[in-house]
Amino acid sequence: VSSNLLLAAAYVYDAQYNRNIPFETSPQAVRLYYLYNHWTMETATYFFIFVNLCLALFEEPSYTHLDATSLVEVLCLLVFFGRLVHFAKVTPRNVFWKDTKNICIMITILVTLIDLIIYGTLKISNMQSVRWSRPLRPIFLINFAESRQIRRAFRSIRNTLPEVTYVFLLFTFSVLMFSLMALKLFGDRNLRTVDGSPYFTNYLEIAFDLYVLVTTANSPDVMMPAFDFSWWYSLFFITYVIINTYIFMSVFLAVVYNNYRKHLKNEIRKLAYMKRHKMVEAFNLLKVKEDTEFVVKEAHWKQLVKLVAPKISMAHRELLLRISDDEQKDKMSFVRLADLLNIQVITMKLHSHPLANWIPRVYNSALSLLIRSMVQHKGFVWIYDVIILINAIFIALDEKNPFISYAEWVFLSLYIAEILLKVYTYEPRTFFAKNQFWNWFYASIIVAALIATVLNTTLKTTTKYNSQQVLDIVLILRVLRLIRIIDSIQRFRVIVNTLINIVPTMLTFGGLALVVYYIFAIVGMEAFHGKIQFFGNSTSPYALMCGNVALKDSTFARAKYCKNNFNDIASSFIVLMELTVVNQWHDILSFSTLKTPPLKLFIHQILYIDFSSIFVAFILEAFFVEY
Amino acid sequence: VSSNLLLAAAYVYDAQYNRNIPFETSPQAVRLYYLYNHWTMETATYFFIFVNLCLALFEEPSYTHLDATSLVEVLCLLVFFGRLVHFAKVTPRNVFWKDTKNICIMITILVTLIDLIIYGTLKISNMQSVRWSRPLRPIFLINFAESRQIRRAFRSIRNTLPEVTYVFLLFTFSVLMFSLMALKLFGDRNLRTVDGSPYFTNYLEIAFDLYVLVTTANSPDVMMPAFDFSWWYSLFFITYVIINTYIFMSVFLAVVYNNYRKHLKNEIRKLAYMKRHKMVEAFNLLKVKEDTEFVVKEAHWKQLVKLVAPKISMAHRELLLRISDDEQKDKMSFVRLADLLNIQVITMKLHSHPLANWIPRVYNSALSLLIRSMVQHKGFVWIYDVIILINAIFIALDEKNPFISYAEWVFLSLYIAEILLKVYTYEPRTFFAKNQFWNWFYASIIVAALIATVLNTTLKTTTKYNSQQVLDIVLILRVLRLIRIIDSIQRFRVIVNTLINIVPTMLTFGGLALVVYYIFAIVGMEAFHGKIQFFGNSTSPYALMCGNVALKDSTFARAKYCKNNFNDIASSFIVLMELTVVNQWHDILSFSTLKTPPLKLFIHQILYIDFSSIFVAFILEAFFVEY
Ligand code: NA
Repeated sequence: VSSNLLLAAAYVYDAQYNRNIPFETSPQAVRLYYLYNHWTMETATYFFIFVNLCLALFEEPSYTHLDATSLVEVLCLLVFFGRLVHFAKVTPRNVFWKDTKNICIMITILVTLIDLIIYGTLKISNMQSVRWSRPLRPIFLINFAESRQIRRAFRSIRNTLPEVTYVFLLFTFSVLMFSLMALKLFGDRNLRTVDGSPYFTNYLEIAFDLYVLVTTANSPDVMMPAFDFSWWYSLFFITYVIINTYIFMSVFLAVVYNNYRKHLKNEIRKLAYMKRHKMVEAFNLLKVKEDTEFVVKEAHWKQLVKLVAPKISMAHRELLLRISDDEQKDKMSFVRLADLLNIQVITMKLHSHPLANWIPRVYNSALSLLIRSMVQHKGFVWIYDVIILINAIFIALDEKNPFISYAEWVFLSLYIAEILLKVYTYEPRTFFAKNQFWNWFYASIIVAALIATVLNTTLKTTTKYNSQQVLDIVLILRVLRLIRIIDSIQRFRVIVNTLINIVPTMLTFGGLALVVYYIFAIVGMEAFHGKIQFFGNSTSPYALMCGNVALKDSTFARAKYCKNNFNDIASSFIVLMELTVVNQWHDILSFSTLKTPPLKLFIHQILYIDFSSIFVAFILEAFFVEY
Repeated sequence: VSSNLLLAAAYVYDAQYNRNIPFETSPQAVRLYYLYNHWTMETATYFFIFVNLCLALFEEPSYTHLDATSLVEVLCLLVFFGRLVHFAKVTPRNVFWKDTKNICIMITILVTLIDLIIYGTLKISNMQSVRWSRPLRPIFLINFAESRQIRRAFRSIRNTLPEVTYVFLLFTFSVLMFSLMALKLFGDRNLRTVDGSPYFTNYLEIAFDLYVLVTTANSPDVMMPAFDFSWWYSLFFITYVIINTYIFMSVFLAVVYNNYRKHLKNEIRKLAYMKRHKMVEAFNLLKVKEDTEFVVKEAHWKQLVKLVAPKISMAHRELLLRISDDEQKDKMSFVRLADLLNIQVITMKLHSHPLANWIPRVYNSALSLLIRSMVQHKGFVWIYDVIILINAIFIALDEKNPFISYAEWVFLSLYIAEILLKVYTYEPRTFFAKNQFWNWFYASIIVAALIATVLNTTLKTTTKYNSQQVLDIVLILRVLRLIRIIDSIQRFRVIVNTLINIVPTMLTFGGLALVVYYIFAIVGMEAFHGKIQFFGNSTSPYALMCGNVALKDSTFARAKYCKNNFNDIASSFIVLMELTVVNQWHDILSFSTLKTPPLKLFIHQILYIDFSSIFVAFILEAFFVEY
C-alpha cells in the first residue's frame, strides 16, 4: 500500500498542477519522478537556462578573449544533459524517444558542442570564426518540460497561422494592387519627395512605401507630394489607409482572436480530461470494495493528502475531508480532490496582538487605546492621502533647495510612522498575510527607500562621492510611493487587481517574446555588428555619420540614431523593441538594408502583425476572464 | 375590416423593418403614416440633409460672396420643418413633445435661422461675422427618425464611456507618475534634444511628450538623448511603452468591446420584444374566435401579405402560407410573419435562354453547342486567370510604348468577349441576378473602362486635349479589373464575402465618423483658416515657412506640410484623417497650438482612443457574426 500510496500521490500531484508526463510506475521510478519534480531541481534547471542565455552579455562582439564563457556554456550543457538523462530514467523508453522535445534538446546539445569545438580549434590557430549555434539557445527554454505555458502559447500562434495566412495573402494582394495603381497614377508626373528624389517611379519601392504606410510609420509624408499636386489624390491614400490599415488589421485581430479562443477551449477541455484521468488512476490504486461499490478509506485519504500537500494545516485537511461528502470516498468525490487542493484557503485566525501578550498593561492603557482607535478611524487614511498629494508637489519641486531635501526626511518618517502604527494596531501576521499585496508592496518600497536614502547620504557625507545609481533608485522609489493613492479608490483597485491577475499570462507572452527577440538579436549582432558606431557627443563629421560613410546625410544620421545599433546584446534588444513599437522603423532599419531589397523587413513585420495580434488576443481573453 | 387591415399592415411593416414610431391609429393618421414612410419622402429627407452638409463646400472661407448658400440653407430648413410637421401629425401629441429628437431638430432649426438673420443683417451693414451655427448641421443627420443605426452606434459609445473613464483616469495617473519620474531622472542632466533645446526639464512638456509616446508618434526620438547618456535609461522608456501603450491600450479595447457586446445584446433583446409586441397588436386587430382560440382567417392573411409586400410573387406568397403551419393562423404562427418576410427567397427559375426561343436553330447548332461547352469548361476560367496575370504585367510596363497601349485594346476586347460569351452561354437574367455580386461588379468595371477608354481616345484625337481626370479613371479601372483573381480562390472569396457583409456596419460607423469630423472641420476652419498657406512649388522663404513666421524652421515647414491646413472643408477633412492615422500628429498640429497648452490634443486623443476602439469592436463583432 505504501508504494501504491506514493504512486497515487504522484498522480494527484500531476493532476493538481496540470502536469502531463508519462512515468514508469515502479517504486524506484516514482521516487526518481518525485526528485525530478522537486522545486530545487526545477529552479536549478531554470537557473542554468538563464545563465546560458545571459552568456550573450559577456561574449564577443562586446567583449573579446573571454574563454570563461565557453567553459560556462559547457557546464550548462552538462546540466541540461543530466536533466535529460534523469527524465529518461523516469519516463518509459519508447515514450522518451518519440517525444520531439527530447530529440530537440539532444540535437541542440550536440550541435552546440560541435560548434564550440570548431570555434575553439580555430581560435587556437588564431582564426576568426562565428559562433553560429548561439541562436539555438532559446530551444532549451522552450523544450524543457517545465515550460508548458510557453509551448501552449506557441501552439496558439501556430494554430492561427493557416487562417491568418489567407488573410495575409489577400492583404498582400491588396497592397500590390494599390501599388500598381499608384505607379500608373503618379509614375509619370515627375513629382519629387521632400528630399528631392523621384516620387513613386519604381514598382518595388512603391510597394515598400505603401507597406510602411500600413504601419502608419510614414504618414503623412508619403502622401504629401501627390497631395500638393492635387487634393483629389489624397483620396487614394485615405482609401488605402482605411482598407489596409483599419479594416485589414481589424480582420487580422478578429481571425487571430477567434482562433485563439477556439484553441484555448480545446486546450482547457483536454486539460480537464487529463486531470480526471489521472485522478481515476489514483483512485484505482487505493480503492477497496465496500458493499457493492469501490471506495477509498478515510485513513488512506488522509495519508494521501498529507503526502500531496504536506504543508497544509490539520484544520484545513479536516475542512477538505468535510467538503468531500462521505466518510468513505467514492470515485465521484475522490476525483474532485485535485481541484479542492487548488483552492486557496485563507485562514483568518483571530490572533491576539503579540504586544497584548507581552506587555498587556501598556498595550491596553488609555493612550494606547486612543492611538489604536485613531489609526482605525477613516480620517487616518484621508490624512495620509493628503500627505501623499503634498509629497507629490514636493517631489516636483527643485530638490537643490535644502528645505525641500529636508522635507523628504519628514515624509519618509511619516510613512515609516504609518507602517509602525498599523502594525501596532493590527496584528502583524494579518497585516502581512499572503493576500495583502498592497501592504507588502508598500512596506517594501518604504523600507527600500529608507535603505537607499541612508546609503546615499552616507556616501555623500563620508566619501564625497555622489553615486548616480543609488540616487536614481531613491528618486524612482520616491515616486513609486505615490501609487498608493490608487488603493484608496475602489474602481481603480478593481482594474489594478485585474491587471495583477493577468500578469502570469503576460509573463508567458514575455517568455515567448524573449525567445523571438533573442534569436533576432544574436543573428543581428553577427550580421550588423560594428556597422554603426556611437561616439558620444563628438561633432566630428565621422561621428555625425555614425562611423559609416553610407549613412552620410541619411535620416538615420540626422535624427542622431547612432546608438540604435547591433553592437552588443543590450543595444540589439533595444533596437528590436523600437522596431516592435513600429514608429520610424523604416528609418531605424535603413542602415541594415543599405541597397538590399527589404525582404527581411517584410518577414519581421509579418511576425509583428501576428505577434501584436496574439498579444492583444491574450490580454482580451485574460481580461474577460478576470474582469 | 379594411381600415383594420391597413393598420395591421402598418404594424407588420414596422416589425419587419425594426421601426419603432408610435403613431395614431385613426384611418387618416395611418394613411399619413404610410406617406411618411414612403421611400420618396425618406430619400428626399436624406437628400436635403446631404445638401445641407455639402453647403460647407461652397461657403466662406473657401469662397466668398455666395449668398446662394444661405438661400439653399433656408430651403433645407423649410424641408426639415415640413418633415417634422408631418411627423407631428402622425404621432400622438404628448409622445411628440416628449421626444428629445424632435425638440433637438426644432431648436436647431430655430438657432440656425437666428444665426442666418444676424449674419445677413451684419453683412448688409458690411460687418464681418461668424456663421457659428454651422457645426450644428450634423444634428439633422442624427436626429431624424431614419438614422436609427447611427443613433444606436452613438448609444453604444455613450454606454462604454463610464467604464472607459475609469481606465482613462488610471492611464492618466500612470502617465503623470512616469512624467514625474522622468523629471527627477533627466531634469538635472543638462541633456539636449536633437535640435538643441533642453531635454525633459519642464513637467508639462514631459507629460505631453510621454503622452505622444503612447501613440508611438515620437518613438524613438523622445528616448534618444537619455539613451545616448546611458543605456540603462532606455529601460525607463521600454517599461513605459509596455505599460501605457500595449497593456493599457489592450485594456481599453477589452473594456470597450466587453461593453459594446453587452449593450448590443440588450439592444437586440429589446428589438425582438418590440417586434413581437407589434405583431401581437396586428394579430389582435385581425383575430376572430374559432372554437376555443383566436385565429386569423386565411383570406385576411393573404390580403395582409399583399399590402405589406406587394412585390413578391404569387408563388412566394403561397410558400409563406405553407411554412406558417395551419390554414387558420393562430397567434404563434402569425407572429413569425415579420421574420418570414425578411427571408430573401432566391427564385431559381429555369428560364430557357432567350436566344433559344428567338433563333433556336442557330443557338442549338453544332458550333454554338461547342462554344457553350467551352465556356462552361473549367479551362475557360483558367485561361482568363492567365490572361489577367499577363495583363497585370502589361499594366506595370511603360505605356508610352505604342505596342503596350495597343495591347490594352486587345485585353479590353478579350474581357468584353468573355462577358458576351458568358451571357450567351448562361441565361442573362441568371447571370445578372441580384445575388451575383461579382458578375455585376465585374461587368460594370469593364463597361466603365470601355466608355472611359473610348472617351479618352476621342478627346485625344479630336481636341488634342488629354483629360487627366478621364485618364486617371481609365487607369484605376484597368487595375480594378485584376481584382477578379480573388473570385477564383475559394478561401479568398469567403473572406471577401464576409467583408462585403459587414459593409452596412462599417457604413454606420462611417456616418458616425462623418458627424464627428464635420463638427471638428467646421470649428477648425473658423479657428485656423488662413493661418497656413500653400504656395505650390514656390521656393521663396515666405512660401517655405507656409506663409507664417511662427513656423520658420519648424518640423512642420521642413517636412513641407503646408498643404495640411484648415483653409477649406476638403483640406480640413484630410488633416483630420491624418490625425486619426496618428503618425506625426504632434508635428501636424504644431501650428494650431503655437505656445498654447495642448489641452485640445488631449481631448482629440481621448476621442481617438474611444473612436478607434469602438471601430475595432464593431468590426470584431460583425466579423464574428458573419465569418
Ligand atoms: Na506611428
